Amino acid sequence: MAQRHRELVQEYWRLTEARQWGRYAELLHPDVVYRLPQTGETIRGAERFLRFNTEYPDIWHATVRTVVADAGGAVSRIDMEVGAETLPAVSFFTFDTTGTGLITGITEFWPEPYEPPPGREHLVDRSPGNG
Amino acid sequence: MAQRHRELVQEYWRLTEARQWGRYAELLHPDVVYRLPQTGETIRGAERFLRFNTEYPDIWHATVRTVVADAGGAVSRIDMEVGAETLPAVSFFTFDTTGTGLITGITEFWPEPYEPPPGREHLVDRSPGNG
Repeated sequence: MAQRHRELVQEYWRLTEARQWGRYAELLHPDVVYRLPQTGETIRGAERFLRFNTEYPDIWHATVRTVVADAGGAVSRIDMEVGAETLPAVSFFTFDTTGTGLITGITEFWPEPYEPPPGREHLVDRSPGNG
Repeated sequence: MAQRHRELVQEYWRLTEARQWGRYAELLHPDVVYRLPQTGETIRGAERFLRFNTEYPDIWHATVRTVVADAGGAVSRIDMEVGAETLPAVSFFTFDTTGTGLITGITEFWPEPYEPPPGREHLVDRSPGNG
């Protein structure tokens, strides 16, 4: 199961980057739920989620950095390149356990850069792209 | 290995929440590296990382939401309660594979709330705490 989940996540991002939306859609459970906790947005169903992806301005490239997968789910960390900027995104995946193996849930975080609070300079080195 | 990594991450957060810094320190490799890619900050070594934790204002409570673990590493999603606010944090863990099983790396993201861009209201439901 863990290995299958890993492969599904790799395939999900491969097809995303290739804009192969037909085959991408085949990975999604019809009732997939996509959540963005930072905005409170929820998109319900494969049809809407596919529209969300295809309507989004096509100006990005996704590179997978890390995938961690077990029997209960999987997590990916990607670098999303948009113009001169590269932003990380972290996605938590759940899967249908009744046999189809389709993606039933994606909860995604888009952590943006911020200035560190003062007072810890004596403990840290600082350089962009350290992650 | 996956199960061991899962237990280590659960124990890491249990000891963090309990402020049991002595036992917490025993989970860390002496050369552990803590990275915050959003600020570009890196803290090198268990001693500094421990000071970072103990010097941080003690006003928070951490609750584990999800742990995904495999032979290569683990990821946790926690809710960090600070006063009236609850922020998610996502931490990617790596471990010493030479036998000690200690934590060698933590790369952590603190995704903050943001306003969604316009143009996708026809696809989304919106409510805070949806994740």
